[in-house]
Amino acid sequence: MAALYLFLLFYCTLSTFGKRYQPTWDSLESRPLPDWYDEAKLGIFMHWGVFSVPSYNAVWFWNNWKNGNRDIVNFMKRNYRPDFTYADFAADFKAEFYDPKRWAAILEASGAKYVVLVSKHHEGFTNWPSNYSWNWNSYDVGPHRDLVGELADAIRNTTNLRFGLYHSLFEWYNPLYLRDKANNFTTQDFVKSKSMPELYELVNRYKPEVVWSDGAWEAPDTYWTSKEFLAWLYNDSPVKDTVVTNDRWGKGDICHHGGYFTCSDKYLPTTLQKRKFENAMTIDKNHWGFRRDARIEDFFSARELIATFAQTVSCGGNMLMNVGPTSYGTIQPVYEERLLQFGKWMRINGEAIYSSKPWTVQQDNATQTCWYTMKKTETGTNVYAIILDWPDTNYLYLNAPITSSSTLITMLGYQDYNFSYSKVQSSGVNITLPNISFSKIPSTDAWVFKMTDISN
Amino acid sequence: MAALYLFLLFYCTLSTFGKRYQPTWDSLESRPLPDWYDEAKLGIFMHWGVFSVPSYNAVWFWNNWKNGNRDIVNFMKRNYRPDFTYADFAADFKAEFYDPKRWAAILEASGAKYVVLVSKHHEGFTNWPSNYSWNWNSYDVGPHRDLVGELADAIRNTTNLRFGLYHSLFEWYNPLYLRDKANNFTTQDFVKSKSMPELYELVNRYKPEVVWSDGAWEAPDTYWTSKEFLAWLYNDSPVKDTVVTNDRWGKGDICHHGGYFTCSDKYLPTTLQKRKFENAMTIDKNHWGFRRDARIEDFFSARELIATFAQTVSCGGNMLMNVGPTSYGTIQPVYEERLLQFGKWMRINGEAIYSSKPWTVQQDNATQTCWYTMKKTETGTNVYAIILDWPDTNYLYLNAPITSSSTLITMLGYQDYNFSYSKVQSSGVNITLPNISFSKIPSTDAWVFKMTDISN
Amino acid sequence: MAALYLFLLFYCTLSTFGKRYQPTWDSLESRPLPDWYDEAKLGIFMHWGVFSVPSYNAVWFWNNWKNGNRDIVNFMKRNYRPDFTYADFAADFKAEFYDPKRWAAILEASGAKYVVLVSKHHEGFTNWPSNYSWNWNSYDVGPHRDLVGELADAIRNTTNLRFGLYHSLFEWYNPLYLRDKANNFTTQDFVKSKSMPELYELVNRYKPEVVWSDGAWEAPDTYWTSKEFLAWLYNDSPVKDTVVTNDRWGKGDICHHGGYFTCSDKYLPTTLQKRKFENAMTIDKNHWGFRRDARIEDFFSARELIATFAQTVSCGGNMLMNVGPTSYGTIQPVYEERLLQFGKWMRINGEAIYSSKPWTVQQDNATQTCWYTMKKTETGTNVYAIILDWPDTNYLYLNAPITSSSTLITMLGYQDYNFSYSKVQSSGVNITLPNISFSKIPSTDAWVFKMTDISN
Amino acid sequence: MAALYLFLLFYCTLSTFGKRYQPTWDSLESRPLPDWYDEAKLGIFMHWGVFSVPSYNAVWFWNNWKNGNRDIVNFMKRNYRPDFTYADFAADFKAEFYDPKRWAAILEASGAKYVVLVSKHHEGFTNWPSNYSWNWNSYDVGPHRDLVGELADAIRNTTNLRFGLYHSLFEWYNPLYLRDKANNFTTQDFVKSKSMPELYELVNRYKPEVVWSDGAWEAPDTYWTSKEFLAWLYNDSPVKDTVVTNDRWGKGDICHHGGYFTCSDKYLPTTLQKRKFENAMTIDKNHWGFRRDARIEDFFSARELIATFAQTVSCGGNMLMNVGPTSYGTIQPVYEERLLQFGKWMRINGEAIYSSKPWTVQQDNATQTCWYTMKKTETGTNVYAIILDWPDTNYLYLNAPITSSSTLITMLGYQDYNFSYSKVQSSGVNITLPNISFSKIPSTDAWVFKMTDISN
Repeated sequence: MAALYLFLLFYCTLSTFGKRYQPTWDSLESRPLPDWYDEAKLGIFMHWGVFSVPSYNAVWFWNNWKNGNRDIVNFMKRNYRPDFTYADFAADFKAEFYDPKRWAAILEASGAKYVVLVSKHHEGFTNWPSNYSWNWNSYDVGPHRDLVGELADAIRNTTNLRFGLYHSLFEWYNPLYLRDKANNFTTQDFVKSKSMPELYELVNRYKPEVVWSDGAWEAPDTYWTSKEFLAWLYNDSPVKDTVVTNDRWGKGDICHHGGYFTCSDKYLPTTLQKRKFENAMTIDKNHWGFRRDARIEDFFSARELIATFAQTVSCGGNMLMNVGPTSYGTIQPVYEERLLQFGKWMRINGEAIYSSKPWTVQQDNATQTCWYTMKKTETGTNVYAIILDWPDTNYLYLNAPITSSSTLITMLGYQDYNFSYSKVQSSGVNITLPNISFSKIPSTDAWVFKMTDISN
Repeated sequence: MAALYLFLLFYCTLSTFGKRYQPTWDSLESRPLPDWYDEAKLGIFMHWGVFSVPSYNAVWFWNNWKNGNRDIVNFMKRNYRPDFTYADFAADFKAEFYDPKRWAAILEASGAKYVVLVSKHHEGFTNWPSNYSWNWNSYDVGPHRDLVGELADAIRNTTNLRFGLYHSLFEWYNPLYLRDKANNFTTQDFVKSKSMPELYELVNRYKPEVVWSDGAWEAPDTYWTSKEFLAWLYNDSPVKDTVVTNDRWGKGDICHHGGYFTCSDKYLPTTLQKRKFENAMTIDKNHWGFRRDARIEDFFSARELIATFAQTVSCGGNMLMNVGPTSYGTIQPVYEERLLQFGKWMRINGEAIYSSKPWTVQQDNATQTCWYTMKKTETGTNVYAIILDWPDTNYLYLNAPITSSSTLITMLGYQDYNFSYSKVQSSGVNITLPNISFSKIPSTDAWVFKMTDISN
Repeated sequence: MAALYLFLLFYCTLSTFGKRYQPTWDSLESRPLPDWYDEAKLGIFMHWGVFSVPSYNAVWFWNNWKNGNRDIVNFMKRNYRPDFTYADFAADFKAEFYDPKRWAAILEASGAKYVVLVSKHHEGFTNWPSNYSWNWNSYDVGPHRDLVGELADAIRNTTNLRFGLYHSLFEWYNPLYLRDKANNFTTQDFVKSKSMPELYELVNRYKPEVVWSDGAWEAPDTYWTSKEFLAWLYNDSPVKDTVVTNDRWGKGDICHHGGYFTCSDKYLPTTLQKRKFENAMTIDKNHWGFRRDARIEDFFSARELIATFAQTVSCGGNMLMNVGPTSYGTIQPVYEERLLQFGKWMRINGEAIYSSKPWTVQQDNATQTCWYTMKKTETGTNVYAIILDWPDTNYLYLNAPITSSSTLITMLGYQDYNFSYSKVQSSGVNITLPNISFSKIPSTDAWVFKMTDISN
Repeated sequence: MAALYLFLLFYCTLSTFGKRYQPTWDSLESRPLPDWYDEAKLGIFMHWGVFSVPSYNAVWFWNNWKNGNRDIVNFMKRNYRPDFTYADFAADFKAEFYDPKRWAAILEASGAKYVVLVSKHHEGFTNWPSNYSWNWNSYDVGPHRDLVGELADAIRNTTNLRFGLYHSLFEWYNPLYLRDKANNFTTQDFVKSKSMPELYELVNRYKPEVVWSDGAWEAPDTYWTSKEFLAWLYNDSPVKDTVVTNDRWGKGDICHHGGYFTCSDKYLPTTLQKRKFENAMTIDKNHWGFRRDARIEDFFSARELIATFAQTVSCGGNMLMNVGPTSYGTIQPVYEERLLQFGKWMRINGEAIYSSKPWTVQQDNATQTCWYTMKKTETGTNVYAIILDWPDTNYLYLNAPITSSSTLITMLGYQDYNFSYSKVQSSGVNITLPNISFSKIPSTDAWVFKMTDISN
């Protein structure tokens, strides 16, 4: 017993002191990804900021406007006085209905296990009272509240979700950034007086377990001092043991260095990835922020979202599904509906998702709308086939090495029924579909067939 | 030739002069309801006004506020300067995204055959440039547009829907009304200088084919001069041949006099009604106007809406389903989704609805979630059983005199399949449900079984 | 004694009942002007309304804008969103510093004896909660106060001034007025539902002792029913004994019919007028309302104002000197300064003004910057020579029949000094001016020489 | 080579006069004050900023509010929504009438020779597009203009005035400043990332010839790095040859170190000062910023201003007379009037002011409302007695060693008249005042008697 104690003490000491990360990618990438992240599978992304006020053309409104986007230019001409600036929108960011506990409840009901809130987007407006963004933050103007802090508290006090933060390193129109850029990033006034102080402040104050960096693509990570930040984050920050980060830390780093990979927005591979990745995607098909003029056809259906999710998880990824709250502080009903539809599906089918691992096969090559996941058990492996289209016929053919001699096939949510099946040729099975009453079918979107105790 | 001329002269004289309606209920109610209305079955109601700006607690916001509603009082205290008045909200009614052609397209896609837009609610704000509401209308302040006229044009130019208007006779806080009321309605300053001139203006200018009157309950129709208005409307107005009206023309008239009956908001009888009625109800379960803080649980599902509709039509009514547009001029996605879900169902099942008539039986007394409609054909009667819950079992039992010797039973949207059935005892049938693939089931909400050529 | 009593009873009866004014000019004009008005000499006019918000180009802003005034069109283009309307300005009429007691104190300090406040200008916005201008008045929108009523109370409770009201009969853009006008004033919808009910309401509620009518010029007084209003005002209104009115009651009436004459804005005759008149003029040389962009050169100096006043009173008129308060409810300092400068002069020289009468001569034909007034005394006549320019020389020559054998000549405010003088030729006097220290001269603007006991 | 080196050494020595200033007070204070400043005598101070929006309680509004000033707390409660912040006022800072050329013309007409505009007050809002105050400056929000740059250009292009800038080193509520302060100024995050970069930017961009520092009193100049800034300003800045600075560079420096002394606001000594000083005072008796609720009694009269000025100049100072422009960009008429009254006086009496020097005596000890200045001439000394009260009597007695044998006594603006006088006792003169017509007296406020060719 004493020996075990000494061993543990030694091990812990080693892991904490013996292993201090250095500001090099080799060292930083030697840190294992905390387990919770891969097990979680689903996170909710939230894009909220001053862009939520015009809520037109969404998050890139300012940049598109400056670049002469015709729709925006006309929108401004028609509706605002000639010298109206983007900063003027901040006054109408009121968040008067913002109820973080309600948000937390909706997010939890979606089946997600973490949330990533935009703390500051490329516009530079901080959703918390930053010391480095005086009078251009949600406390001094607009909502007059600490939007980040209030959600952090609600998430931690009322749910089991992990709380994460998105942070844009650059700011489109910050004059200090523009000057550093004009100097080919040989000066670092911006990063030293604004971006990095802010990021340290964020971590120390709100303890995010995801640090979702963005806006790094114009300058190398040496300009941003990203590696130094990550070394501190992993060695000394209050979230050093549990934090996960992404791969957007400097020009050329994306899909090459960092924590998990995002590679691109809406990254959705069809094959198993070597590195843990995250598919950051949107419920509004084309936009990250709330749009007042959005049509219902602009939103993915629950079915489409679940299909993307099945593929993402099957290929080894997490999905970070984006919601754009309103400037008045609500998650509008169509977003809430999708989240609840997702959550309803997850309550029935979560066994195939949470803590699952990729299987040998991802996509069935016969029934291509079938994606697999698996879990190891004491007696073998359970394989889950997620079926995105219900067959026209009364059987389902899967061309993958699914069955062993003792395999049982059931459908999640359709209890106490073992499906009869026949092995087909070398690798596949043909599962017979009985007369299932519409009133008893567990989903209208996607169905999971579970194959127990497969030997491999 | 002369004879024909004389005949025509006589006929025209008769039709125009021989049948002039008098301002008495007996005379006015002798006018037949124009056919289009009963055939239409579904209309869309739209509540839009200054209340769409706070978009909190919705249409009765002003009245509830004045009556000390705690939520509203607090909402105002928290978010507005102390002397802010209801009229001050008008400035933020901007309707900048109002696209009447897009509204028309959505309304048509819902399967509705008419629309009833609020032209003026109890707040007294007119959604058109009324001569009698100077600077308290949508043209002088707020949107600076003729909201009524623009929708009238779009509906007529791009759809086959009929255009109707809601109009509140009284105005909560109009000082002239309050004075007439304080005088026990012995004076008529308000009705003569405001309400009636406005209503004539509305009809002459926009030619609504539904005049949906409201706000009459505090004073008798003699105060309102409603019967005189109706006589003009039926005799001389530009819509005299096609207009329909409701029953809200004075204290005590509702459910007793007028055109079709509304009886109460959300009137939903369970039995066949003697007089044509309209169930004016809402998609937001409890509110008529857009609410920024609405939750998805506050909205009826498509399934619930269709269930109410089936019952309404079965009992002889039309349904007027309400949508609350936003102050910025859009139909928010959750409303659009419900309308499109409804429309999708109607495209498959409209045969059982449009131009249908009530049958002998309304609600099946065995399968109580089944409601009937019928249509006469040359060879007999087609009866439609609208089934709101799919049976758990593989048969459907209907306890009504459905079958004759030649009856075929089919399901709308499930083509080319005659369901086998057996007569049960004296009056019922037992329909066998085959193994229908989920991918082929015509609806997830309600299903129509069609019984052809029933003799009675 | 009984006889006297009976006589008085009869006389009073006659005067009250026997003398009821008829709605004809002959009858109405037979009413004597109440004495207080001629004795008062100075009134203050106040133009306040929605035009005080743009406070640019002042009171006719709306009309000038609509007529394409380039400065206003550009002002609006540069500073407001494209669809901004005049009505939208009302929200910024806040009057947050409006302190009617302070106004009353300033007005009294000016030496004026009455005030005429604009209750409603051509814009139609009522500065009181009119029953006939719902949501287009100062109580429902903007200040959310009864501007008229509060000033009426303050004037009456804290000063000896009389309270009067300006009222515009027409409203530029009231659709009812425009329709009556389009009908060549053969219809009277506007006057019957808006203008006249409002005017009766004003008189009954606020009891103004000046009814300063305006905006009548497009239509005859038969359209306006002005004579009927005046008959009521003189016979039965709560101010029937003391009210005075002007001459703007219908097309062609100005300078021909009514109470006192205004003839035109800024009417300033050089000779004695047969009928009592009022010179309604402005402190801002060209504008009636507050202008944010006014320059000091745009304001008359105290000296210029006093010069105009001397001429006005000398020719038999009153002067109504206009002030334009700010939208936030203050009399800006430059206006206050002029009023106090005026008051300072009046405290010294009021003897020559209040209750004075025109003399035989108005303007001295030798010293043309001298204007005369006079007062009868028991022993003769006191004549006052108001001198607008101090002579370059050490004598003052006045060519008018000033002196009798016992005449003393003094200067108001320069006590205990009898000026020596010599009669010149037939009619004039030469007054010797001694070495008066600058520190003792009673005014820097105008000086009054008083000639006592002139026989004629 | 050695020759070149020596030449360069010589040249550099010459060019700086062998004198590069070191960041020590001894060295910095060894720099002579540029001549233009002492010769100018009168400057205009302009306080403009976000405080001009509430324009109530003026410049210290924010601080007073936070400190619980009851008037402000009530003002906010009555007129704004509960969570309204000071930063929210910025949106209403519109400056729509700002016409810098007109300002320049008014300033020049006042007789002033320089202007000092507030570039940034303690609120931290910069009136120019500072790189270090993103979205809290006049270009990004509010006016959307470079207020500083536009005035600099207008002053330089259209007048002969010098352009100066006020700059507050500290910012009440800047979180970086508050943190440095909490650290007892052992950290310098604020001064290094905000205050100093901004001050260098100001000087380099706008080349002010007065740098009027303020807001330094809480921290020592070592915290502010003021001496280093001044060394740069005097050695290397674009205004090194002509710039003047004041004495507000750190705790304890005021009235002890720097350029000229301000000592305190409204510093007005009665005796000759050893060091050049500036009396920074206000036209509004108690406030630096525009106040919407100011009364005329709150403003000094021209006479009072000239009296203060005479005393200031007599004791060796300049006067910096403050004007508070409006948020809409104008100098309101009462300020303009005072400036023009001042200018009118200066056009007549400027000879006694501009480029004058203090005399042996400042205040006459017999006629205490008399203050002296003097100018050396080739033949002796001209002494100017500025008389603030015109004597009651017909003589003026001055008890100072004024006359030599050849002295002539004249009055500025009263041409071609030599006043007779008699020497009285040892030191004084008795000047006889003739009968001067009021129409010829050169001023109503203060008069200058000029004594030529006094020997001492």
